Parts: sequence; C-alpha cells; structure tokens
Amino acid sequence: MLRKKDRVALTPPMGWNSWDCFAATVTEEQLLENAAYMAAHLKKYGWEYIVCDIQWSEPLAGTGEREYRNFARLTLDQYGRQMPAENRFPSAAGGKGFAPIAKKIHAMGLKFGIHIMRGIPRQAVHEHLPVLGTDVTADQVALPDSISRWNGDMYGLDPQKPEAQAYYDSIFQLYASWGVDFVKVDDICNTNMYPHNPYSAEKEIEMIRRAIDNSGRGMVLSLSPGPAVIEKAWHMEKNANMWRITDDFWDKWELLKAMFERCEVWQKHVSFGCWPDCDMLPLGHIGAGFHAARETNFTRPEQVTMMTLWSIFRSPLIMGGNLPECDSWTLSLLTNAEVLHLLGHSSDACQLARDDAHAVWTSLDEDGSRYLSLFNLGEEEAEISCPLAEVSLFAAQVRDLWQRKDLGAVESTVSAKIAPHGAVLLKLTELHEIE
Amino acid sequence: MLRKKDRVALTPPMGWNSWDCFAATVTEEQLLENAAYMAAHLKKYGWEYIVCDIQWSEPLAGTGEREYRNFARLTLDQYGRQMPAENRFPSAAGGKGFAPIAKKIHAMGLKFGIHIMRGIPRQAVHEHLPVLGTDVTADQVALPDSISRWNGDMYGLDPQKPEAQAYYDSIFQLYASWGVDFVKVDDICNTNMYPHNPYSAEKEIEMIRRAIDNSGRGMVLSLSPGPAVIEKAWHMEKNANMWRITDDFWDKWELLKAMFERCEVWQKHVSFGCWPDCDMLPLGHIGAGFHAARETNFTRPEQVTMMTLWSIFRSPLIMGGNLPECDSWTLSLLTNAEVLHLLGHSSDACQLARDDAHAVWTSLDEDGSRYLSLFNLGEEEAEISCPLAEVSLFAAQVRDLWQRKDLGAVESTVSAKIAPHGAVLLKLTELHEIE
Amino acid sequence: MLRKKDRVALTPPMGWNSWDCFAATVTEEQLLENAAYMAAHLKKYGWEYIVCDIQWSEPLAGTGEREYRNFARLTLDQYGRQMPAENRFPSAAGGKGFAPIAKKIHAMGLKFGIHIMRGIPRQAVHEHLPVLGTDVTADQVALPDSISRWNGDMYGLDPQKPEAQAYYDSIFQLYASWGVDFVKVDDICNTNMYPHNPYSAEKEIEMIRRAIDNSGRGMVLSLSPGPAVIEKAWHMEKNANMWRITDDFWDKWELLKAMFERCEVWQKHVSFGCWPDCDMLPLGHIGAGFHAARETNFTRPEQVTMMTLWSIFRSPLIMGGNLPECDSWTLSLLTNAEVLHLLGHSSDACQLARDDAHAVWTSLDEDGSRYLSLFNLGEEEAEISCPLAEVSLFAAQVRDLWQRKDLGAVESTVSAKIAPHGAVLLKLTELHEIE
Amino acid sequence: MLRKKDRVALTPPMGWNSWDCFAATVTEEQLLENAAYMAAHLKKYGWEYIVCDIQWSEPLAGTGEREYRNFARLTLDQYGRQMPAENRFPSAAGGKGFAPIAKKIHAMGLKFGIHIMRGIPRQAVHEHLPVLGTDVTADQVALPDSISRWNGDMYGLDPQKPEAQAYYDSIFQLYASWGVDFVKVDDICNTNMYPHNPYSAEKEIEMIRRAIDNSGRGMVLSLSPGPAVIEKAWHMEKNANMWRITDDFWDKWELLKAMFERCEVWQKHVSFGCWPDCDMLPLGHIGAGFHAARETNFTRPEQVTMMTLWSIFRSPLIMGGNLPECDSWTLSLLTNAEVLHLLGHSSDACQLARDDAHAVWTSLDEDGSRYLSLFNLGEEEAEISCPLAEVSLFAAQVRDLWQRKDLGAVESTVSAKIAPHGAVLLKLTELHEIE
Repeated sequence: MLRKKDRVALTPPMGWNSWDCFAATVTEEQLLENAAYMAAHLKKYGWEYIVCDIQWSEPLAGTGEREYRNFARLTLDQYGRQMPAENRFPSAAGGKGFAPIAKKIHAMGLKFGIHIMRGIPRQAVHEHLPVLGTDVTADQVALPDSISRWNGDMYGLDPQKPEAQAYYDSIFQLYASWGVDFVKVDDICNTNMYPHNPYSAEKEIEMIRRAIDNSGRGMVLSLSPGPAVIEKAWHMEKNANMWRITDDFWDKWELLKAMFERCEVWQKHVSFGCWPDCDMLPLGHIGAGFHAARETNFTRPEQVTMMTLWSIFRSPLIMGGNLPECDSWTLSLLTNAEVLHLLGHSSDACQLARDDAHAVWTSLDEDGSRYLSLFNLGEEEAEISCPLAEVSLFAAQVRDLWQRKDLGAVESTVSAKIAPHGAVLLKLTELHEIE
Repeated sequence: MLRKKDRVALTPPMGWNSWDCFAATVTEEQLLENAAYMAAHLKKYGWEYIVCDIQWSEPLAGTGEREYRNFARLTLDQYGRQMPAENRFPSAAGGKGFAPIAKKIHAMGLKFGIHIMRGIPRQAVHEHLPVLGTDVTADQVALPDSISRWNGDMYGLDPQKPEAQAYYDSIFQLYASWGVDFVKVDDICNTNMYPHNPYSAEKEIEMIRRAIDNSGRGMVLSLSPGPAVIEKAWHMEKNANMWRITDDFWDKWELLKAMFERCEVWQKHVSFGCWPDCDMLPLGHIGAGFHAARETNFTRPEQVTMMTLWSIFRSPLIMGGNLPECDSWTLSLLTNAEVLHLLGHSSDACQLARDDAHAVWTSLDEDGSRYLSLFNLGEEEAEISCPLAEVSLFAAQVRDLWQRKDLGAVESTVSAKIAPHGAVLLKLTELHEIE
Repeated sequence: MLRKKDRVALTPPMGWNSWDCFAATVTEEQLLENAAYMAAHLKKYGWEYIVCDIQWSEPLAGTGEREYRNFARLTLDQYGRQMPAENRFPSAAGGKGFAPIAKKIHAMGLKFGIHIMRGIPRQAVHEHLPVLGTDVTADQVALPDSISRWNGDMYGLDPQKPEAQAYYDSIFQLYASWGVDFVKVDDICNTNMYPHNPYSAEKEIEMIRRAIDNSGRGMVLSLSPGPAVIEKAWHMEKNANMWRITDDFWDKWELLKAMFERCEVWQKHVSFGCWPDCDMLPLGHIGAGFHAARETNFTRPEQVTMMTLWSIFRSPLIMGGNLPECDSWTLSLLTNAEVLHLLGHSSDACQLARDDAHAVWTSLDEDGSRYLSLFNLGEEEAEISCPLAEVSLFAAQVRDLWQRKDLGAVESTVSAKIAPHGAVLLKLTELHEIE
Repeated sequence: MLRKKDRVALTPPMGWNSWDCFAATVTEEQLLENAAYMAAHLKKYGWEYIVCDIQWSEPLAGTGEREYRNFARLTLDQYGRQMPAENRFPSAAGGKGFAPIAKKIHAMGLKFGIHIMRGIPRQAVHEHLPVLGTDVTADQVALPDSISRWNGDMYGLDPQKPEAQAYYDSIFQLYASWGVDFVKVDDICNTNMYPHNPYSAEKEIEMIRRAIDNSGRGMVLSLSPGPAVIEKAWHMEKNANMWRITDDFWDKWELLKAMFERCEVWQKHVSFGCWPDCDMLPLGHIGAGFHAARETNFTRPEQVTMMTLWSIFRSPLIMGGNLPECDSWTLSLLTNAEVLHLLGHSSDACQLARDDAHAVWTSLDEDGSRYLSLFNLGEEEAEISCPLAEVSLFAAQVRDLWQRKDLGAVESTVSAKIAPHGAVLLKLTELHEIE
C-alpha cells in the first residue's frame, strides 16, 4: 500500500552526514570535499546523500564551552527563516542560501540534505518577525514552553494556529527553491516523553508532512532523535520516511549491543518508504567537531557487526566519518557490493534468536535465496550456529559475503567461529528445501 | 519463516469459549450442547474449537460473592494436577479427566480446548504434594509471591528450578493424553506489569512452550489476559499462537472503539501462526454465569463493526454467547462466508486513517482484489469515504460483503452512508490500477 | 532555634494580595484603595501587607486571550530588571519604580510587597542586556530550558554562574531601595516536579535567600505555587518564611476539603518564621481580573471553616477579595479579634481526627487554655463531638469564638450541631485536668 | 497532647533484638543469655527490652538456602495462631508459649518483646482453621494477594471482615497472657508501595492498634520495615510508638550516610510516644544467623557517628550485636551515660546544616543547655565548625560527651578536627546568650 511520500525512499537512504565528524561546525568546503569523495568512490555502490547537520545558521557555532551556545544570534531572513551563516558557507551570500551548494552536489550526481530543529527561532519570536504570507508575527504562533531540552534555539509551533502551518510552508518552500532532497528534523521523534508539555510532536510532524507536500518537491523526511516509541509506529509510517529508533549512537560496544534489542522490537516495521533508523555509522575519522577527534573506537569485528546488522535489518546507511580521511579498511566496508545488495534487494528480515551471548538474523533475497547472519555478542571467540531447519532448509550452498568466498554445501546446521563482538553474513542457496 | 509451532494455527483460530456466557460455572452438558450446535450450524464456515474456560476443577465455582472463591478446595490428583470437578463434569469420574468430553467433541469433527492459570495450585503447595517424575514437592518449585491479582488458586513456578519444567511437562502430558487441542493460559500475558515481582512471565511462557513441544501433541497456545506489551511481540511470536492485545473485552462501545487503537498498534504483527487476539465476541446471549444474563448490549451496527474489524485485522474469532440461544441475526453474523473468507484468505491488513470520528482499513485478497472497510466511530450517521488512490486504484468494481450485493463501479472515491458506530466491508476489484 | 530570617515573620503574615480580584491587571489606584481600606478597617486586627501580584511590568497585561500574553514586551531597565509599567503605575515614571507607592503605604502604617517570577526576563536574555555589576550579559547566566510551564516571561538562572547571584542581588537591591517588605517568588515551590530539568529549585531559592540577606533589608520571602514537597520542608524552613502547600486555591469546596489533608501532612512544620501557606482567602468580591467577577462561591459555613482552619493551623492570612467592596459579613470574618488571636498566641496545633465526614483540631493558647475546632465535612447537618480526654481535660468552660459567647461548662465530651461544610471554634478553659 | 498509647514509650525504647546476630535462628538459650548480660551490664543505663525477632514458630528456620524457607510448616495452635517452635524454645512445651521466657526476663527487671508478620498464616488459611471466638475459618478473612514480597508465611487480613479484627484480637490476647511488652510488626510500614494491592496497610495498623487496646496490656507497637512514608506520619503517630524510617540498616557507610537524609526529613516528628526509628545498631558481633558472622564492619568513628546521630535525633536504641560477645569498646558505646542522657532529657533536635561533606545538629537539654553534634561525612579528616550564633549563643562552656572532658569556653565558633566518617557530641552551657 505504497503512499505517495514513500516513493522518494523505496530503498533505505544511503549517504553521509556531517555530525559525527564536524558536529556543529561543518563548512561549505567540508561538505563539498565529502561530496567529491562520494562521487568518486562511493556513488556506484548506492551512496547518494550529502547532509549538512545542525547549526548551519549560527556563525559562531562550536566556539562555546558546550556543543550549542545558548541564545546564539542566528542568521535569519526577514521572515525569521534560518539562512546559512555566510562566514561558514560563503556561497550563501546575497540571500542565495544553500542553492549554490545544492547545485554543485547535484552536478556530481548526488543529492543534498539539511538538518533543521522543529519549530521557529526564539530570536524571530522575541523580535516579533512577520510570518511569510500571513499578517501575524512569530510570537503569535510559538509556544513558550515547547522547547528542546538540549538546544536553546527554537520554540515549538502551536498546531492550533493556522499560521503555524504557514511558517512551516514558508521554510519548506525555501528549501524546495534551494533544491533540497532530504530533511532531517530534530527534537521531534521522542518528544512525547515531555510529560507536562501541551506540545504534541504528532501534530508538528503532520504540519511538516503537509509543508513538504505543499512545497511540490519530493524530499526524504528523517526524524530525530530517538528512541521513537513503537506505539507511534503507524503515525511515523504515515508521515515520515525514516525515524531514529535509538538515542544518539556512537562508537561504544554497549550501544551497538543495545541496537539488537531495538531491531528486535522494530523488525516488523521495515517497509518501502518507511525505514526505522539505527543512526549514523561512526566509522573512520570522527569527532573533530566537538568530541576529541579520533579514529572510531569500534574494533574491526564490531564494525563488521554494525554493517551487518544495519544491512540485514535494512536501516538507512548514513556514514558519519569524514570521507576524504577514509582508510582502505573503512572504504572496504562501504564498498562491499554483496553486502550492500541487501539494502535494495532483500526483505522479511527477522531475528531467529537472541540472548546475551549471540543473535541470529535471517532474510530473503528477491532471487529466492536466504541471508543468514550470526553474531557473537560475547567477550570471547565463539562458535555460533543455526539449524538450517530454522530457515526451512535442509541443505544449502553457503557464501560468506564479507569474505566474498563460497564455503561449499552444508547440511542441517550452519556454524561459524566468530571473534568477540563480530559477525558473519552468509547467503544460503537451497539444495533441497524441507517439506 | 514458519516456526513448527505455527503450523497448528495457519489461520486465525475460530471457535467458542464458555466464559462470556457461563463464567466460572460451565458444565459438561453446556459444553456438549454448544459443540452440537457448532457441528450442526457453524462448522462448515470454519468454526471448530470448543473451549472450556476457568475454574473447571472447582466444585463450588460461582457460588461465592465474587467470581472466584478465595482458597477454594480444588479437585487435584496425587501430583497436584487439577482435574475436572466431577459434580460439574460427570464423565471425568474415575480419573478420566476431560478425555471423554474431548472424544465426543472430536467425534463431531471439532476440536477441544481448556483454560488454565499459569502456575501450580496453592493447595498442592501447602499440602507439599509430589511433582510427577521428580523427587521434590510442590512447595519446592513454587514462588510465594508470584501470584495473580485476581484469582487466588495458584502460585507461579520458579524458572530456576528444573522441576518447575517437570511440573509443566506433567500437566501438558496429561492434556495430551486427554486429547486437548487448544490451551488458553491465563494470568501470563500482562504480568510484567507487576513491578516488584521476581517472577518473569517470559520464563513461564517458555516453560509452557517447551511442555507443549515435549508432550508430542500439537496444541494452540493462547495467552491471556491483555494488554500484551508490544515491545514483547517477538517473544510472543516465537512461543505462542495468539495473545490478548486488550484487557477483558465486553459489550460496551468504549471498549470496541478502543480496539481500533490496539489494532493500529499491532497491525504489523499478524502472521501465520501468530495472531494478536482482540478477545471473545460478546454476541447473542451472554452473562448467565456471573454478570446479569442478557442479550448483548451492542447495537446491530456495533456488532457489524466488531465482526468487520476482527475479520479484516484477522483476530482469532471466538464466540462468547451461548450458541444454542443464538437468534437468526446473531447466526447471520457468524455464517457470512464472504466476510469469514478474510480470515483465511486475506493479508497485509493496514489502517489507512483513524481519528475520533472514523477509521478506514484495507487488505489484500489472495486473488489480487482488495478489501476496504469504512467505520463510523461517531455518534451520528455519517458519510465515510476513502480516495481510491489510497489503495492504489483508479477505478473498481465494488461488492458489499455484509449485504452480499454488487454496488457497481466507482471512480476516484468510495464512500458510504453509515449508521453511528457502524461499518461497511467492501471488496474492490480493479478496473484500472493507477500508474 | 530562631534563624535571622525568621525574625521578619514571628507570627503568620496577614495582608492583602491583588491576584484573586485583579489577576494580572492590578493598578496603582487599586493598590492604594485597598491600602486605605486596610488602614482604616483592618490594621488594628493585625493586617498589614499590601502585595502587588504578577505582571506589573507588562503594559498590556490581561488584554490577551489567556491570563498571560506569550512573549509580551515587558518594561525593563538597562540591566534587564523589570520596572512597573507606567501606564498602570504612573508614579513609577522617571525610573522611580515602586518607591512612591511603597512610601504611601508605609505612611499608612502598612507594609508593601511585590510578586516576582524566579529567573531573568527572556527579553533581557534575547537582547543580551548586561547584568549589573558584572561584565557578562543576560544570555550568559540564563538556562534555555529552565522555564515556567504557565508563563513565558522568564528563564531560570544557572546556579553554577556567579553572575546569576549578581543578577538576583541586583533586583533585590532595587527592591530594598524601593522599600519592599515582602516578596512572593513564583514558579519556584513545586518545580522539582519538572523531571528532565537540569534546573534546581533548591539552588534558585538559595540564591534568592542570599540576595535578600545581601540587600540589607528584611523582607518576608514567600514561595509559590504549591504543592511544596514535604521531603523538602527543612530546606524551605531554612530559606523562606512561607511556602504554598497546595496548588492555587479558589472558592470550591473540593479544594477546601482537600486542604485538611494538606494541613494534616504539614502540621508539625509550623514554627516562628516558617509558615506553611494555605494560600489566599477567596472571600468577598473576587475574579474581576480574569475569571468572571463574582462574590465568593463559598457558603457562609464554608467561609467559617476556611477561616477556622487557617487560624488554628496558623497559615498566613492573605485576603484575596477587593477590600473596598467587602460587605459586613465578610468584614466580620476579617475582624474577629478572638479568632485572629490564634495567629499570634497559639501553638502546637494538631489534628485529633479526620475522616471523610469530619475533622477535629486542637491547639494551645499561651495562657494555658486550649482551642478545639470541630469541622463538619459532610453534606448534611451533623453533630460533631470530641471526648475531652483527647485534649487531656476532664471538664472545661467553653467559649464559642465565632459567636463570641460563653457556652458554660461541659464534662467528658464537647459536641456541636454544625451545618454542612461548617465549623465551630471553641476555647476551653480547664476545670479539672485529667491525671 | 499525649495519647493513651504514648504512655508506654515516653522516651525512646532501648533494648536488644535478636535479628542482627541470629537472623531467623534465635533460641531460648540465646534470648536468656542476652537478657542476663543486659541485666548485669546495661540495665542501669536504661536498656530494658529483649526482643525475639522473626520465625520463632518455624522449627527449621535458617536451614534453607535463603533466609526464609518457602511454605515452611509453622507451629500453630488450633486457632491458627503461631506458637514458639518447641525445638528452639523448649519452655514453650505444653502450650505455654513465650510465658515462661517472659517471666524469667521480667524477673531480671527487663521487658520482653516479640516480632510478628502482619496477617494470618497461609497454613491456617489453606487448612481452613477456625478463628477464635467466631464462626468463620481463616480462609474467610484472608486476602489472597495481600502478601509479603520477602516472606511467604502470611496472608494479609481483609479489613472489611469483622472477623479479621477478631483474629488480631485473638493473637494479642495471647501475647498479653504471655506477658509481652513490645511487639514489632513486620511487612506493614512501607506496604503502600504495593501499587496494585487492594490491601491497605493503614487499615491493618488500625486493627492492630485496636487489638492491643482490647488486650488490656500496654505494649509498645513498633512498625517495620521502612522506609515509612512521611505523608503518613500523622497516621503512624496516632497508632504506633515507633516506625522504621529506612529499609534494613546494616554496617555499611553508605547506609549510615543516607540516614542523615532520613533524619532531616523526620526531625519534626519526634515526640513522646512517637519515635521515628533508625533501626537496630549493628555493633559488636553480628551476622551469625544468616550473613557471615563478623565483628561490625563500621570503623570506630562510624560507630561514634551512629550512636551520636541516633542519640541526638532520639531514635529508639536497639542493639543488634550479641551482647555476651561485646568487647570493651562496644560496651563503652552502650554505657556512656552522658550520651544516653539525651534519649530521655533532650528535645527539639534539629539539623543546622548538611551537605555532602558534613552535617551539624543541635538540641536542647531540659536543664537549658544545648547539645551540638558535628559530623564529618567526608573521606578525609576535616575541621568541622559551627558559629555559635546559629544556636543563639554568644559564648559557651563546652564539654565533649564522648571524651567526657570539659574543653573550656569558646566564643563565636565551635569547631573540631574530626576523623573521616566521625563525629563529636558537645554540650554547650551558655556564658552569654545573644539578644
């Protein structure tokens, strides 16, 4: 039952986002360098989005003692709409916004995305700026206590005011005019956790959905941060293309291990245009924006585990490391065509088993073969196995997708010796199906 | 990825249960009368289970001031296993248990089910009765504070004791010997709501799964009461065949309206052998066991709404009213072959819209046509409509399944004037699919 | 163990507050009219504070659709300190603030109080106004998510910044220069109910305590709104003079009945300089500011109950109705010297009994006699009684303080026939004490 | 306003309890040895109660893998009343119960106490034993889900059944006949934490209060376990003599440090006959019953801190270690007459200061002098001080009560160098009081 909004993301989006490497400080130059790298090395494997994350309208972003400077002066147009800070994005000068960057990225055969916080700038509100196309001012559509707990820039919009929709329309019309293909909306995915708030995240998501539809341009709608609430799955499926199922994900094993629990919960909710999102891949060179710059803390087996789980579950794949600094190992993870093939050509992923020591997942390829991934969640090397009967097979030809090597035929049980925190991803072609 | 346990319920179970009409007081005679009626009038439409609900081991059940008499003396065998009270189930005399009744029901071409509470009788525990096949006594496997909030008969079993599994094995072995086809296990589906309990419903469900498998007889495993927790869906899908997604359902509009919210949450979790359960159908003559005897309080439109939602969602259909007292209207609801066809032949049910005034659901028939149900949740007659584009159609032939009447071709929008709390269920055959 | 801050309120404060009658709209003229009335009619009974409640810096207060206009422009000085709106308080012109009004009120032999919200105006923050005596601006000391749920004017102050203390010092220094005697600080007494807030009400209360001490002028510190949390009683006793033990109190019987529960909880926490506060008395003419103007909805027996409970518990007594519009009945409640005598001369109030139908309280007069109040909490006239043994008396002379009439001697039991929701307040002089 | 029930405990009870040293295993011999020691060494300092703690009716108590054996067979009389297990308490033979032991202890000039769990033995319930003086059986007055989380012996009693009161009357009548002076009722003080329970701890406390009054014998009523809820303070003050303000207290610094927080909350609720209870003193030789036998893990400074806080707060003092094994240090803590003097002769204890590093308390002696205790809550030796002005003194003579040494006169500030986790307790006699 494909919805119109699903058509912009028939497979899980693949791209790069500036947050993991540059936090709030990303510049035009960095965006374009990553785009150039992607066009040269990754595009042919399906990677296509270049996404500029948070605080692009803040000239001094990243210069404070915390990630966000409280009550910073943002670059706004006369209608209270955020514009790229020109010291960081010089091509935006003259009110051109992100249009010049989008144009360059499109010229490389890629797509361009931006981050926004839900709501309207507090600065616009306290300056009583007009809302485009209405006769009200920003203070009349904002809710004084619908605010983010972690970023002081915005107020939420009052869904009972028609001019609140007008404000959202005004910004998405601008983004459409710039050529934006992907919008990551933040502070919107877990906000029903604010118990005393009159604010309704659901209503704000609906306003944004309408604003995109009203803009006339297809844009992927990505919601953050998580954890999204599973009871609200239907609402997200109806309105968005991807939504975060966890809080911010970083290069720590506990977080990666916890993702298995989240994928267990969300496994039935992966469908065309609707992608539960495991968050960005903190691979390669990260942390230069705010946290200490570093190579990812994940071990190689952990990196394989992450790529395997994201791929079989079919999470969006959004690379977090700075692409031009990728080493050959990292690049190999991003360019394994047999693994990435699952993103667009597998279905019905489901968890077969999970306990504290291991997990097993399976899915179907459109060619009728099966995928099977075995994960060692323990602290020691271990033999992880799965009876073939569990995937309704009696015997199968086995191919290891990370090693790109045929392992021959197996009967009754598949098993593998796996490093601690590591994984294997296998393709099984049936010899004889059971029953 | 069909599991072995799924094969006993490839379509949603359909049957009758004694609770809504007889509460804790059902007798052998009543079971057999209902079975006879089902065999004569309903079997050909797919109805097959006759299920004896709670307190069948309590001779004086229903004679107290509340539904359950505290600390009642139950009929137990020497291993602390509940046996049918012989004053109510005379054929059980001589230790034959439910075998004679099961035999008669099987002879009618039907199947037989029973209710149990999770755990072990407190009476067996305080009498220190032996656990069959072990050298321990009941007090050594019971947990003193793993108890039901609403029925004082049982203690939960300690999953850390191997003999707890032995006890479950001993009762399911008995049920297998009787010829039981269906077991409704109670006080097990929402028990992780007991915050301070060391008891784990998950572990007890797993013990029961193993006991059924160990018994060698296929039995449908049904878990109660709800609401089941959606985060535990995977665990239930792995172990059970159906589980209650609400608290007890009765003939009140608020409860029926609330079921739309529950179905929204669970819609992606309906699959072969795994049936989220909307609970029994309080239709016809109900309430004779404890509440006041009555004809259902549901209006006819509400009854149609209930049957439509349960059918398109593919809930198990378990009739609650006393079958021999069905009037022709009630019987017509239970024997509409075109509606009941959805249970076994539709898939991919999903909600298209829901607000306080209406809901719209659709699903696919295996013949490629579509189902569309329109619900009027408001208090006034209303025109409810749905753009055909929402189901990816441009124009369609429409058949009304409750009226069993072809309505002709429609273009662009299907709509119907519907009584308050009522519904229509339509089959759409495409003329031209869009795009 | 009298603390220095206790000395400004050795007995429960008695006064008038503008909120119940004028809400956010009070004017200089209204303040002075109430002061004149108090000086003429009430001062000799102990009433002394005239308190100007919320929004006095907002020129257009009360003109919006809700009580507070979101993001209203306040009257601020160059240091972000709120100044009285000159259209409402003409004598404030020329930067004189409340000094002229305070002077007039002092000249009548009364004291002057003001209301403030905790924190710093958002307007000062977004305009980056300097903090007096520091080299930082308002945005550097404010917390972006420490905000009120019900009034959008302020941000909380960051207790980790020394300049936050400087801001509080700057406003209390201003209030001292105006001659303020009483400060009601709002949005501070129940804010530990904000679960995710980094903001600490405790820290902000401590900054305010220090700012008052630093100002060199004694001012009563009153904290609102309630309910204050009893676990924090010690902290409030250490820092404040009165704190609200309920949410806003209005002229509804349910609220009055609920106050008995609150007084039960707080009865041991009434001491010199530390007055758990039952909130203002909605008597006489109220509601003209925002709610519909009306005479109090309380019946006369309810009014007697309220005055009796507040007096024997020794809550602060803050009249809410517009004094010049008092009728003779209302005036009689405010001028019964024998009842008001309890405020300054009784102690050890304790509840003897309470259930759904009645309550009994007792306390000691400094002359050794006892007070006994009997409350009829039921819906019918009832005989309420109390064994004299419960107050350690055998026989006593009884005087009715509301009727101002000696009732003669009683033995063993005191009882009275009382109207529904009504009360009697008795003074018992012992004839023979028991044991 | 002394209540009748207060007269049995005009000062905080002082005694010994068997739990800390013998857990569930105490015997007649151990009780009498401790009594003999107390009579010889402690009685003259005010110690008087010998209390037999939990499981005295269980012959095999302490032989299982946990503290309590699930569903153990208790020694009951024909009315379902627990009787001492004769293998452990030989003098109870012939139905004499604890009368012989009580008689011996009384002969030593001491008092005798016992522990009970609230409710009625499950064994009596499942055996349908008669309730003395009624025509009902135990199963008719018990609540099937009003049970302890930690001990499986009892069901709670249904306050709506008059025969539930009769059962309590029957046991307290028995205890009165034995000569019991003190009853510690367990599983009753924090049970409103059981969210879904129909059981009301309040009602059960009231039944027990009435049963004691009906027995005609004065008995101290002690409620456990904690933490008691401060909102229920009035109810406890009305019905009991002491109630636990914490969960079980053991010899760990974290627990001792946390007690300062509990005492802060409860400090206003200490009065004649009403003693918030900091729990037993785990001093000397403890842990022989279940935990590993040991000398207390508290350091000497920690022991001084505990004794000082309990004494100035006026908690009941109930020694937990085995008295005959006391070394001279431990004995010195229990026999410092100047410190123990505070129990019966001080009042108005209040905390002056508390933070993570230190605490200061003060109180008044009936002779007009002041107590001041300084606590070092930090991990290093520290100078802890208090301005004399805080206790309204200008200069004072100071005596150290633990050292029993006059320290001379001080002015303006008292201070002491104190070991980590240690305390000093000072008596201040004024030279000149301030103001």
